[in-house]
Amino acid sequence: MDTAPAVGGGRGGAGVEEQQEVAELPQLLLFAPPSPPFLGLLAKSFRLLKPWEEESMSTQQFLTTQAQSVRALACIGLFQIDSEILRCLPSLQLVVATSVGVDHVDLAECRRRGIAVTNAGPSFAEDCADLAVGLLLDVLRRISAADRYVRQGLWPIKGDFPLGSKLGGKRVGIIGLGNIGSEVAKRLEAFGCNISYNSRKKKPSVAFPFYSNVHDLAANSDVLILSGALTKETYHIIDRDVLLAMGEKGVIINVGRGALIDEKELVRCLVKGEIGGAGLDVYENEPDVPKELLVLDNVVLSPHKAALTPESIAASGKMAVANLEAFFAGKPLLSPVKDE
Amino acid sequence: MDTAPAVGGGRGGAGVEEQQEVAELPQLLLFAPPSPPFLGLLAKSFRLLKPWEEESMSTQQFLTTQAQSVRALACIGLFQIDSEILRCLPSLQLVVATSVGVDHVDLAECRRRGIAVTNAGPSFAEDCADLAVGLLLDVLRRISAADRYVRQGLWPIKGDFPLGSKLGGKRVGIIGLGNIGSEVAKRLEAFGCNISYNSRKKKPSVAFPFYSNVHDLAANSDVLILSGALTKETYHIIDRDVLLAMGEKGVIINVGRGALIDEKELVRCLVKGEIGGAGLDVYENEPDVPKELLVLDNVVLSPHKAALTPESIAASGKMAVANLEAFFAGKPLLSPVKDE
Repeated sequence: MDTAPAVGGGRGGAGVEEQQEVAELPQLLLFAPPSPPFLGLLAKSFRLLKPWEEESMSTQQFLTTQAQSVRALACIGLFQIDSEILRCLPSLQLVVATSVGVDHVDLAECRRRGIAVTNAGPSFAEDCADLAVGLLLDVLRRISAADRYVRQGLWPIKGDFPLGSKLGGKRVGIIGLGNIGSEVAKRLEAFGCNISYNSRKKKPSVAFPFYSNVHDLAANSDVLILSGALTKETYHIIDRDVLLAMGEKGVIINVGRGALIDEKELVRCLVKGEIGGAGLDVYENEPDVPKELLVLDNVVLSPHKAALTPESIAASGKMAVANLEAFFAGKPLLSPVKDE
Repeated sequence: MDTAPAVGGGRGGAGVEEQQEVAELPQLLLFAPPSPPFLGLLAKSFRLLKPWEEESMSTQQFLTTQAQSVRALACIGLFQIDSEILRCLPSLQLVVATSVGVDHVDLAECRRRGIAVTNAGPSFAEDCADLAVGLLLDVLRRISAADRYVRQGLWPIKGDFPLGSKLGGKRVGIIGLGNIGSEVAKRLEAFGCNISYNSRKKKPSVAFPFYSNVHDLAANSDVLILSGALTKETYHIIDRDVLLAMGEKGVIINVGRGALIDEKELVRCLVKGEIGGAGLDVYENEPDVPKELLVLDNVVLSPHKAALTPESIAASGKMAVANLEAFFAGKPLLSPVKDE
């Protein structure tokens, strides 16, 4: 031992100190198991409560007996944090979501009780924008459909695959110009697209044309890109009228939430050829995808992966920890979800 | 009739004049039928010779009897203009190609005889760059593979599809920084990629790091993008060593010509997992695609369509006409293919 043992009443030996430190770590209630690296990160700074590990009691029993003093919970993925859960947690002050969209959290109840909610902030914005652009390129230039054609051995037999359409010069309407929408715009400008947008209000620092009305935006767009949050106001913001306003070559890309679009109407428009195509990462009843879409060549179907790469998941984990540390240190949160 | 009939020997009536005008239009020899709109464009300015319409004689017979005074030919698509054809055309001064790559034209023989060759210039550069980026996004983010997964109904049964990898931050090496490569670089900068390049010589006006050696470029790249011309010097420029230099996560994108890559070695590397993936628009023996590739999930296969949209085809038609008009007016050609 190269240091003298601690003396005096203030500090115990190393073992005792560690025990005390663990006891002193702030409690963090987890919903759904995190990935091993994220779990490791959280365990360094928090005493973790894991209701799914307690086989002898229900979640409700666990919450009402073990989590009455819990001030913060972290919600992994899209685990539903509903009013029933919130009711069991009288001391709760913070819900940390690891996703961008927080429609799986009962925001109204949180607001009523003054519980703060944070999301992944910009962690996923670049990857989400990349997938939006990838889906758009795929739909316009028919990449997945052409790949199927080659894999089925049809090229030597049937000859040239039908042409797609040029991305440059397209009028692209972005609905929700937040972190993701801004990254989409930056990328599509490099392809020579003409960007305009719709959001709750005009952004003074943004030069792109603003449309206060989604229908007007659609009528002036060849492509619509959805990347915004699902709220009561944005539920089915894309209805049949908006879809038809784009015209029969119109393309819609959705990397936000399925219920931003009236999915039944979208399917009908695609099947009838009333719009040109769609690139979808999200659906109203995931993981169920409407069967009619599975056989269409003018759609590209992604299994809710827009935001997710190992890189973005790591970034969102760091953001969650940073929000938690700020909260317990009494500092401002890094990515609070603002009231509508 | 509101104008007096022409008098004197200089001009005939309208009908005769039109006939004379057609006779006076410069001759243009076509190889392979153009699209109807392009044919219409050409017919306005040229008297067209169409060997494929003459069923009573061979192409050689046609050329040696009907095309001895022909000064210009337009080559549609990738029709082979070989030394045998050139030998039959003693007056030929110009070959107008409608493609970017001109490896289907016997350039050595053209050079020897002083026959100028023009290509599509920048007409296809944007679309070609768009497909290169689309293929790269698809390989990295596994878009086509995920689309197959959803279409096969596996999402509800097998759960989450494996993650892809983030595009931003990737080191992208572009081989051949011409019209297409420059457009690729512009797009990928907006995604946060780090660009470097290899070409015959360093370009003084370009700030990206230059590698004079393809192997060194590969060793410093996560992604290689091929968009350059196929020449004797670039044949199999990507061999096994270059592929392995990228490492096992390396991705290669080819929108140039199949034979830029040693395809057998590429297939071996992909099958064995010695590189990460490939996005291919071109192959060594088109339309035949190596069978081993058809079952791999880490490749995206496109049937030689990189350059082609209705928009780019129209642009290349205009470029061909502009080159022909410049030639017959004795003005500089717009997109001459320069000597190596």
